[in-house]
Amino acid sequence: MQVVDKLISKINEKSCPIVVGLDPLIEGIPRHIKNQSLAKNGNTLKAAAEALFQFNQELLDALEPIIPAVKLQMACYELYGQWGIEVFHRTMRLAKSMGYIVINDSKRNDIGSSASLYAMGHLGNTPLIEGFDNAMKADFLTVNPFLGADSITPFIEQCALNKKGLFILVRTSNPSAKQYQEATIDGQLLYEKIASDVQSFARENPGDNQYSSIGAVVGATWDEETKHLRKLMPNVFFLMPGYGAQGGTADRVVSAFDNDGYGAIINSSRGIIFAYQQPGYVEDYTEQKWAHTSFQAAKLMRDDLLHSLKQAGKLPKNW
Amino acid sequence: MQVVDKLISKINEKSCPIVVGLDPLIEGIPRHIKNQSLAKNGNTLKAAAEALFQFNQELLDALEPIIPAVKLQMACYELYGQWGIEVFHRTMRLAKSMGYIVINDSKRNDIGSSASLYAMGHLGNTPLIEGFDNAMKADFLTVNPFLGADSITPFIEQCALNKKGLFILVRTSNPSAKQYQEATIDGQLLYEKIASDVQSFARENPGDNQYSSIGAVVGATWDEETKHLRKLMPNVFFLMPGYGAQGGTADRVVSAFDNDGYGAIINSSRGIIFAYQQPGYVEDYTEQKWAHTSFQAAKLMRDDLLHSLKQAGKLPKNW
Repeated sequence: MQVVDKLISKINEKSCPIVVGLDPLIEGIPRHIKNQSLAKNGNTLKAAAEALFQFNQELLDALEPIIPAVKLQMACYELYGQWGIEVFHRTMRLAKSMGYIVINDSKRNDIGSSASLYAMGHLGNTPLIEGFDNAMKADFLTVNPFLGADSITPFIEQCALNKKGLFILVRTSNPSAKQYQEATIDGQLLYEKIASDVQSFARENPGDNQYSSIGAVVGATWDEETKHLRKLMPNVFFLMPGYGAQGGTADRVVSAFDNDGYGAIINSSRGIIFAYQQPGYVEDYTEQKWAHTSFQAAKLMRDDLLHSLKQAGKLPKNW
Repeated sequence: MQVVDKLISKINEKSCPIVVGLDPLIEGIPRHIKNQSLAKNGNTLKAAAEALFQFNQELLDALEPIIPAVKLQMACYELYGQWGIEVFHRTMRLAKSMGYIVINDSKRNDIGSSASLYAMGHLGNTPLIEGFDNAMKADFLTVNPFLGADSITPFIEQCALNKKGLFILVRTSNPSAKQYQEATIDGQLLYEKIASDVQSFARENPGDNQYSSIGAVVGATWDEETKHLRKLMPNVFFLMPGYGAQGGTADRVVSAFDNDGYGAIINSSRGIIFAYQQPGYVEDYTEQKWAHTSFQAAKLMRDDLLHSLKQAGKLPKNW
C-alpha cells in the first residue's frame, strides 16, 4: 500500500480531511506546562523543548478521535538545537504509534548529493559506520523545488525505496508567493510549470488508485488558481496551508477536492493548537482540559469543510 | 564591525579567498577514526556523528594556517538526528573559537513566522521559557529565496540585530539550476531578478566598506553569467560553490572578484576534505598525518586561484 493511500484511508476513517500543524511557539504553551518543565530542567533549551513535547502529547491525545494527520513545522523545533530535534523526532514517533499520518514540514532543498543525504535522513536509511539505521522517519516530507529536477529526484528515489511521500512546494500561501512564482517559462507561469513537472513525477510514481505519493503544497489563499492547479495535477494530492489565520476559507479550498471529495488535506495550525487562548474557549480554560478546546476547534473546522463540500456536491458517500 | 568586513579581514590575513566545506560523509572518514568511535559508542547514530566530529576537528587543526572560513553542509549532519545536530553546533563553536568565519549551509526557507524562527535559531536569540539563549550561532546562513521577499526579510532583520550575514541562493551550481532559475520576469531571467533584489537588500544593509553582509550564492559553473552577476550586484559578496568536483575552475571564478581582488569566496568540499584518498596523496597516508593532505590540497587550490587573479591583474596588493 502506498503512503498516499494510507493517508486517504485514514482521512476516510475519520471523515476529516484536516492535518493539524504541531507548530508550537514557547510563548503559546500553557503556563503550568512551562512551570513543570522549568522545575525539572531549569531555564534551558532542553526545558523549552520538553515543554513543546508535553504540549504536543496532550494535543495528540485530544485530537486522535477526529484528526487523521499531523504536520510538524521544523522551524519550531530546530531553534532548540539537539533538544528540539530530539523532541521533533519523539513527537513524530509518538504520533505514528497512535496511528496518525505524519508530515515533516522542513522544506528541504539542496543539490544532488546533499539532497540525497536529506532524503536518506528524513525518508530512508541513514548510513551508520556499519550498515544503516531507519529510526527517524516521517511519512511525508515537504520539499522546495527552486534548484530544479536534479535536486528533487533524490527525494523521489528515497520515496520509491521506502514507500514514503513528498509534498513539493508549487504555490505557497504567503503574500510574496507571487514575486518569483509568477515568472513566466514556456508560455506559462513558473508555478504552473512546476505543477506540470510535479504531475509528471506523480504519473511516474503512481499510488494504488488515482493519487501519487508525490504531492504538492498549494496555498489555500489563492482560490481561482486552486481550480486551475487541480486540473493541471489530476494525480497529485494537495497539502493546503493558509486556512484560517492566513485567510483561506472552506469555500476557497473546495476546488482542491475532486468530484468524489478526495485529493486534498487542509492544514490548520495556530487556529487549532492555540484554541484555548481564543474567545469562546478561553473562558473554560483548565489545566486538565485545555487541549479539549483544540478538539472542539478541529470539530468546528471539520463541520465547516464538510458543509462546503456538501454544498459543492463533493461530500464523500460514507462520511 | 559588520560580519562581511570580518570575513574580508580574515581572507586578507590568510591571503586566501577559500572556504572549506565541512561536508563529511561517513564512508569517507578514515577507518581508524571510525574504529575509535565504534569502540566507544557502539554502531549507533551517535558513533557516526562523533566520527564526523573527530574528522572535522583534525581538519580544522590542519587547515587553520591557511583557510579563513568553513562552511557546514547541514544535510551531512541532520541525518544523524539529535547527535548530528549536536556535532554540527559543536563543530561551529570549535571553528569560531579557532578564529574561522563560519557559514551554516542549511538553505533554510519558509513563510513569515516560520522564517523568523529559523532566523532566531541560526542567527539570533532563541526564546527560552524565560528570556533568551544565543548558543548556536553561525556568522552566515544560506537561504533559499523561492517564497519571495516576506520569507527573506525575517532573516535580514535578525542579521541586522545580531551583526550576522546571509548568502541568498541566486544561481546554483547544479545542472538543473537552469530549469526554473531561467524563467523570465520583468524582461529578465529569474536569477537576474533575484540578483537585483539581493542587491537592493545589500544597499539597504551596508557593511563598513563596499560589501554588505547580505551576500549571494553564485555557482562557479556558469562563467559568462558570473561576470554579468558581478555587475548586477556590486555590493554583494559572492559565495561560490562548484569549484573542482562540479567543474568550476580558477579562471572561471575570477570574474566574481572585483578589480581589487575582493568580493568572493570560493568553496571546495570533497576536493579538500577527502584529499587523503586521492592519487598523489593516498600514497603518503598515515593515521597521524592524513589531514595534512587537506592542507596541501588547500594550498594548491590557493596557488591556482592566486595565479588566475594575478593574470587578471586582480591580485590584492599585500598578498
